[in-house]
Amino acid sequence: MENRLYNFSAGPAVLPETVLQESKAAILNYDNTGIGILEMSHRSASFKKIALEAKDNLKKILSIGDDFEVLFLHGGASLQFHMLPLNIACNQKTAYINTGVWSNKAIKEAARLGSVLIAASSEDLNFSYIPSLKSDQLDNDLAYLHFTSNNTIYGTQFQSEPDSNDILLACDASSDFLSRRINMDRYGIVYAGAQKNLGPAGLGVVVIRKEWLSKSSDDLPPMLSYANHAKSESMFNTPPAFSLYVAGLVFKWILHSGGLVAMEKLNQEKSDVLYSVLDKSDFYTASVEKGSRSSMNVTFRLPAINLEDKFIAEALQAGFSGLKGHRLVGGIRASIYNAFPLQGIKDFVVFMQKFESDNLIS
Amino acid sequence: MENRLYNFSAGPAVLPETVLQESKAAILNYDNTGIGILEMSHRSASFKKIALEAKDNLKKILSIGDDFEVLFLHGGASLQFHMLPLNIACNQKTAYINTGVWSNKAIKEAARLGSVLIAASSEDLNFSYIPSLKSDQLDNDLAYLHFTSNNTIYGTQFQSEPDSNDILLACDASSDFLSRRINMDRYGIVYAGAQKNLGPAGLGVVVIRKEWLSKSSDDLPPMLSYANHAKSESMFNTPPAFSLYVAGLVFKWILHSGGLVAMEKLNQEKSDVLYSVLDKSDFYTASVEKGSRSSMNVTFRLPAINLEDKFIAEALQAGFSGLKGHRLVGGIRASIYNAFPLQGIKDFVVFMQKFESDNLIS
Repeated sequence: MENRLYNFSAGPAVLPETVLQESKAAILNYDNTGIGILEMSHRSASFKKIALEAKDNLKKILSIGDDFEVLFLHGGASLQFHMLPLNIACNQKTAYINTGVWSNKAIKEAARLGSVLIAASSEDLNFSYIPSLKSDQLDNDLAYLHFTSNNTIYGTQFQSEPDSNDILLACDASSDFLSRRINMDRYGIVYAGAQKNLGPAGLGVVVIRKEWLSKSSDDLPPMLSYANHAKSESMFNTPPAFSLYVAGLVFKWILHSGGLVAMEKLNQEKSDVLYSVLDKSDFYTASVEKGSRSSMNVTFRLPAINLEDKFIAEALQAGFSGLKGHRLVGGIRASIYNAFPLQGIKDFVVFMQKFESDNLIS
Repeated sequence: MENRLYNFSAGPAVLPETVLQESKAAILNYDNTGIGILEMSHRSASFKKIALEAKDNLKKILSIGDDFEVLFLHGGASLQFHMLPLNIACNQKTAYINTGVWSNKAIKEAARLGSVLIAASSEDLNFSYIPSLKSDQLDNDLAYLHFTSNNTIYGTQFQSEPDSNDILLACDASSDFLSRRINMDRYGIVYAGAQKNLGPAGLGVVVIRKEWLSKSSDDLPPMLSYANHAKSESMFNTPPAFSLYVAGLVFKWILHSGGLVAMEKLNQEKSDVLYSVLDKSDFYTASVEKGSRSSMNVTFRLPAINLEDKFIAEALQAGFSGLKGHRLVGGIRASIYNAFPLQGIKDFVVFMQKFESDNLIS
């Protein structure tokens, strides 16, 4: 028995146990090669197969063909805040939707390199909702419209893509990538750090429209050039090999589990269970309005801060870890990515209800 | 039994088996936390301890104090080719020693941002030796003198630091970092990708003189700013957490093994055994002259290319993997980093001698 807790961490986050078991078995000897997965040349036939399968399976999951390129890069999503405008929109106009800390970081990097229109913002209410956007306000000469599809800190999520007319979307999908279906026809680029739904930290996944690769200057530093990484099949330098290997296992797990349709259904069911408890309770209050709620990060409050501290402490004792809300918003945050099991939600709800009845302010 | 081969890969490369065993045990449940090492928040107390210990132990290994900062970054050494001049030498003069492919990549990035003097080069003989340098040719206004301490492709290595008068050194030590003693007083910065002597790929380690941190512009993209990463204790974004964890175990292993003095002695002994066989043989020819030879990557030739192919194939059958030389130079390359065991060298030498007697051209 491994005595694993239910891990509600916002990221790095829980991974499928079968993926962990397979990763564990590969540490000293990958697939009977006599070489451990951490020690294997990225130029070896074994590793090239791992990388190719990961790419093919990700394309299968996303139902995309040869008009998109998949890049596996270093640096997580944060480096993409810089690489995206550097490659695609230098000295051009872009539009960004501001839904919080991570959007803001992306905006700051784009503004360093070009002109940024803030197309919509929810800053007025501390980013507690997803703002709507009037696409007729968007000029046709925008390089892209950028949005952060899910906002871990606040627990908000775009319920569908923003209206953008014919302007292609650029999306930081770090915290909900592969958690639901996505219509890639609308996108120029989607990028994500791996450490929520994809695998261990240290990997950035970029899915980019191939025709966008020619937008980059030929004179970029090669580590910052999408075109260079595409040309090198994401092996310009030694890739974050183990994170890529584990992500490949996660991609297989998603396909075997029924792909994005199944992920979406499961995530809907999991978050519905939680939100329904919150909405029925006078003790717990969901932090986010219906219509803006995240199926990945469920945020809520208790009647008092000392009760929240008590809740977090007792939850940990009961086997539920990582529930403390982000310091910017406080409260409770239950992050329930793809690999978080439904049973964990059901058990957690029982705990919540007992905690409520034990702590009702009479 | 794990049936592991002797892994001569140039990188990613062999790691200590005790480190692998400990990493393996942490995959599903790290240190009885109930959470796997891949799934653990980088803001958790457990992970902060891992990162802090790794930093402290690396400083202990290098015998450095508070005048140096240790950064654990994404992107390997290749991103450092850009970050180093961007942070330290924008619009300034630098000097670089050209000892091959990796030096050239570093030079290209520095030349993008400032003026580069090639202080010495071994390009005339396809980088088969370490060039000497007359320090009186170096102007005093150079931001640094850069060199690549070990050159994996050719099997060359600086036997000691280049003469640089009072100019501080900048060193890409990717393939021999922590393999021998180093006098940090001479250095402004040393950087290395992890995947040779330190751990799995995906991590770049930077050791930089603290006073150099103020050389950077305040307006750099934060992911490319040393000062920003220093301020954030290498947690500006989610770090490549697992690679950092394993590197921390390797640092402990080095300390327990006797530190850099012991590493240097062992690496000297291991490479001496190999070079001595090469020098005594009329069949094998060392590719690099005495005085320029690497203790990390031992490169040699056989009398004919078809014999080299046969050697590599039969070696693999006999349990010795990863011996094919880099495509730019051909021949055989035995990479024998810190974790490569002496017994593996002894067994390999027996194989070499048998192969020689079986294949002597009469």
